[in-house]
Amino acid sequence: MARKQDLNDNLHGLYFEDLAIGMSDIYSKTITESDIILFSAISGDTNPLHSNEEFASSTRFKGRIAHGMLTASLISAVIGTKLPGPGSIYLSQSLRFKAPVRIGNTASASVTITKLIPEKKIVELETICKVSKNIVLDGEATILVPKKGTMKL
Amino acid sequence: MARKQDLNDNLHGLYFEDLAIGMSDIYSKTITESDIILFSAISGDTNPLHSNEEFASSTRFKGRIAHGMLTASLISAVIGTKLPGPGSIYLSQSLRFKAPVRIGNTASASVTITKLIPEKKIVELETICKVSKNIVLDGEATILVPKKGTMKL
Amino acid sequence: MARKQDLNDNLHGLYFEDLAIGMSDIYSKTITESDIILFSAISGDTNPLHSNEEFASSTRFKGRIAHGMLTASLISAVIGTKLPGPGSIYLSQSLRFKAPVRIGNTASASVTITKLIPEKKIVELETICKVSKNIVLDGEATILVPKKGTMKL
Amino acid sequence: MARKQDLNDNLHGLYFEDLAIGMSDIYSKTITESDIILFSAISGDTNPLHSNEEFASSTRFKGRIAHGMLTASLISAVIGTKLPGPGSIYLSQSLRFKAPVRIGNTASASVTITKLIPEKKIVELETICKVSKNIVLDGEATILVPKKGTMKL
Repeated sequence: MARKQDLNDNLHGLYFEDLAIGMSDIYSKTITESDIILFSAISGDTNPLHSNEEFASSTRFKGRIAHGMLTASLISAVIGTKLPGPGSIYLSQSLRFKAPVRIGNTASASVTITKLIPEKKIVELETICKVSKNIVLDGEATILVPKKGTMKL
Repeated sequence: MARKQDLNDNLHGLYFEDLAIGMSDIYSKTITESDIILFSAISGDTNPLHSNEEFASSTRFKGRIAHGMLTASLISAVIGTKLPGPGSIYLSQSLRFKAPVRIGNTASASVTITKLIPEKKIVELETICKVSKNIVLDGEATILVPKKGTMKL
Repeated sequence: MARKQDLNDNLHGLYFEDLAIGMSDIYSKTITESDIILFSAISGDTNPLHSNEEFASSTRFKGRIAHGMLTASLISAVIGTKLPGPGSIYLSQSLRFKAPVRIGNTASASVTITKLIPEKKIVELETICKVSKNIVLDGEATILVPKKGTMKL
Repeated sequence: MARKQDLNDNLHGLYFEDLAIGMSDIYSKTITESDIILFSAISGDTNPLHSNEEFASSTRFKGRIAHGMLTASLISAVIGTKLPGPGSIYLSQSLRFKAPVRIGNTASASVTITKLIPEKKIVELETICKVSKNIVLDGEATILVPKKGTMKL
């Protein structure tokens, strides 16, 4: 999170000029059974690995796990609400699923700015999700961030 | 969805031996206001671009749009329930967000097998989401698919 | 809930003439993890005190708690569905948050009529929420209640 | 929103020392039919004024309106996520319901610090919800805000 530019613009997040390589922010939440049920409903991904304890117990995971894309959505939360926050536009995201996230795990997504391309207003970020100290997901994001006074890009 | 191998295993999806380059499947649903609200809850992504019509109207998108990761979750639905279905393990996914998905749009995710690596049981897929004929999201997925009799990999 | 006045009006609650000082009613429910997730979505209040067990454990509350306004909403349930029920208009509510409500707690909201102002059709109520015998929230409500034959006030 | 104190504490909001009289922040969202349905589910407030278009049309409101406590929950969102954000403790809230909020209205909640009581770490805020320029709800909040290095108060 960082300071806003002016009071008339107070739902907007950071602008391109506010950003620097190395800036980082985090969003973290406990993944619950309800999250998984609702994610199945929204996505249509009714894979029993996520919703059927008997089936999931028979797999290498030994129990239900969260959808990988559910964990990935925490990255969207950091980018969309904190760094840089509202007004930025998601261009791409790569995701490497490293380890399962289980019901009751608290997962944290952190994003760190790795590259700024001012002429295109493009920002590249390293994106990592962890449970405790273990990386469960990593990847890279590319976003477009408006310059000041150009909210609509 | 393809045929099951045996009755004892009837929640499991396809096995590596069932797959061939060029096989394709699809999942499609209408993206509703409710989906967006619930996705905000699950992900923590309360970006007003998704939940605030006044803010969203002031942006280049001219109104609320779905979270990109919500659209991406339809890819997870195809892979997790249809091709190859339960039992496969998501290794990676790349996502390029091409165009917004609006409330009421029917989005379809299609996946097509592009490469099979038998010694590693790895399958590569092209993944595309469309609204009508317009591509709103594309990317590639890599998954691990068990061979027969090796459900736990 | 008290008796209805006539069959033609059977969704409507009590009228001003039906009320007396000291009348009381209650609504009670178990607060679940799902309630908290959905409340976060509706309200936009993604405070990790409610959704992140690790963060919440580090606070004085030693774990996730329900949003205070979620508990308060049970008062709205009593007033809006039981005493006096549909047709009344909520004018004001004060809320003093006394103690946390945790996942799995059964919270009960009780309202008791403390004052009637017939010329203004105004009713004042004491409003208390408890978990077991402990008060978790108290306050006062003021509502406007139609007289008979004047459903629209 | 304002700057964080250190990286190890990056889910926490502002501390008492960061606050000054006159500081203000806002949260705003469009109130949807889904929000109202989910709020009814969570709260148990199944008053037909919120969920029954025929009943609601027969009242002075001429159609379904949002629960007052749903609108009030946006105040909780500002306090719990922005000013001062996570770590603060809600002590009290007064609510005066001034006008209805309808499906599709974009409601904004703003909070402004009006008083600081350092010896008790207590902060008082004016809290106002508007639809366009019309006040639909106002009131006052009292919160407890930790001082630096005293996250648990």
